[in-house]
Amino acid sequence: MSLVVVGSVAYDCVETPHGRRDRMLGGACTYISLSASYFTDAHIVAVVGDDFAREDEDLLASRRIDLEGLERVPGKTFFWAGVYSNDMNDRTTLQTDLNVFASFDPKVPGKYRSLPYLLLGNIQPALQANVRRQMSRLRLAGGDTMNYWITGFREELLETLKGWDFLLVNDSEARLLSGEKNLRRAADAIMGMGPNTVVIKRGEYGAILFRKGAHFMVPGYLLDDVFDPTGAGDCFAGGFIGYLAQCGLDLKDSHVDPKQLHRAVIYGSVMGSFCCEQFGVDRFRTLTRAEIDARFDEFRRFTEF
Amino acid sequence: MSLVVVGSVAYDCVETPHGRRDRMLGGACTYISLSASYFTDAHIVAVVGDDFAREDEDLLASRRIDLEGLERVPGKTFFWAGVYSNDMNDRTTLQTDLNVFASFDPKVPGKYRSLPYLLLGNIQPALQANVRRQMSRLRLAGGDTMNYWITGFREELLETLKGWDFLLVNDSEARLLSGEKNLRRAADAIMGMGPNTVVIKRGEYGAILFRKGAHFMVPGYLLDDVFDPTGAGDCFAGGFIGYLAQCGLDLKDSHVDPKQLHRAVIYGSVMGSFCCEQFGVDRFRTLTRAEIDARFDEFRRFTEF
Repeated sequence: MSLVVVGSVAYDCVETPHGRRDRMLGGACTYISLSASYFTDAHIVAVVGDDFAREDEDLLASRRIDLEGLERVPGKTFFWAGVYSNDMNDRTTLQTDLNVFASFDPKVPGKYRSLPYLLLGNIQPALQANVRRQMSRLRLAGGDTMNYWITGFREELLETLKGWDFLLVNDSEARLLSGEKNLRRAADAIMGMGPNTVVIKRGEYGAILFRKGAHFMVPGYLLDDVFDPTGAGDCFAGGFIGYLAQCGLDLKDSHVDPKQLHRAVIYGSVMGSFCCEQFGVDRFRTLTRAEIDARFDEFRRFTEF
Repeated sequence: MSLVVVGSVAYDCVETPHGRRDRMLGGACTYISLSASYFTDAHIVAVVGDDFAREDEDLLASRRIDLEGLERVPGKTFFWAGVYSNDMNDRTTLQTDLNVFASFDPKVPGKYRSLPYLLLGNIQPALQANVRRQMSRLRLAGGDTMNYWITGFREELLETLKGWDFLLVNDSEARLLSGEKNLRRAADAIMGMGPNTVVIKRGEYGAILFRKGAHFMVPGYLLDDVFDPTGAGDCFAGGFIGYLAQCGLDLKDSHVDPKQLHRAVIYGSVMGSFCCEQFGVDRFRTLTRAEIDARFDEFRRFTEF
């Protein structure tokens, strides 16, 4: 089933212990839609400036991502620069130029509005809610947020979350949002805010999916080398919702097969792991669904007992 | 099959955010043997002072642990005091009084010497090697070490490791011993030192078992409350080798069923998780094998996909 993805399309300058890229395609919407495109047809809503390169548009189109909702406006595309610590567990933002993203007012194209799956990338909660309202026949909506919105736009975020089936956050965001240190209690508190499902990403340590009275845990894939973790969390999100959309799953259904949801978490983990293998979106230039399924099988081999 | 455990028996003073105990039974040998006793018959080699309480001896005996190798000498039992950080991820040692442990010269009782399984708790590598030499018909030997021996007694440790089937360490110890940051490469390097199997403990994030060309990962059990993590790593070791001994597994056998080894890691994780639920060894005063197997099944439910 079809998926609409909203979020940033950006240029990133990234430095990791493996090297540096001065200007490469990035942004949550980019990573989510590239990742999800291996599972379902993705339709994006985003904004770029007139500097957005044809080759970057071509990459998205090569994955059959629908670009009708990619608005082009005069000015420069969102730009972010950051540097990773030696162990890649921390990153420091050096520069954030919102540029055309500062006045992003997401407009969902008419033909997207009746599509069933919606992934709201990390943008201002009011904009996420605005997009949600433009959709008329949603089967499932979920998204991401970050510390900045949790602390500075709390009421707006809480109002927005009421309309979501799932929230995808990392462990520190889950703790900040819920006020609970223990992840199980943090997830319970977040489920009390609206979402019936909470997925907590733990970076190299994997992820946990929480539903009422149950959870599923997967360890992180052991990479030989993490080249660049930028976008890994968004690729997780793309694999997760992509697989839900592929299977037509509805998280509101309390009888949904838990194993199917667990596999969505595995596909999220698989996509996040591939993302780290090269700089930026480079891994997606060659990645095939067969490689994805082979890594899915590998997850089974190293977690089965 | 029977198991011999060597290591410290101690009194601990521990403070965690949940409270404080001024003097409670502790020590690696205590935790390992209590944990292993649910899977096999355990025989300990350790030393205590004349202050060692009858009730503590009784607890070990109540788990049918063979105390013939528990030497009593004049003086005080090994004493350790420490305090945990609020998130329990760090602890600070406040006091270490080796007492009678300073001159520990482990003597393996004659009737232990032909037993097949040996777990060498974290003591000086030369003493571990000395115990290993006293055993005449070993099927499997493995153990633990720590940063102190890795940095200060490196050659002695490397000589000792040659005779081990497995090494159990945490991630920072694995990195320090191998000089490799990447855990997969760290494990490969350690396997080049002698052990055919390396188990890397990652605290709340679980554990990884490495064998030549393969690995198994398990996430950490999500506890509602971690009361006191003291001894959790040793309880993991006890569950791990206890299950290997229960099944009569030989790690040198390259055709050993990988699923059996994976289950040993799960039982290790189960025992480590129970240990954290109460102060010191208190959980083992009431824990039953049925509770252990129920938690093993729970691990299956939250990791299966």
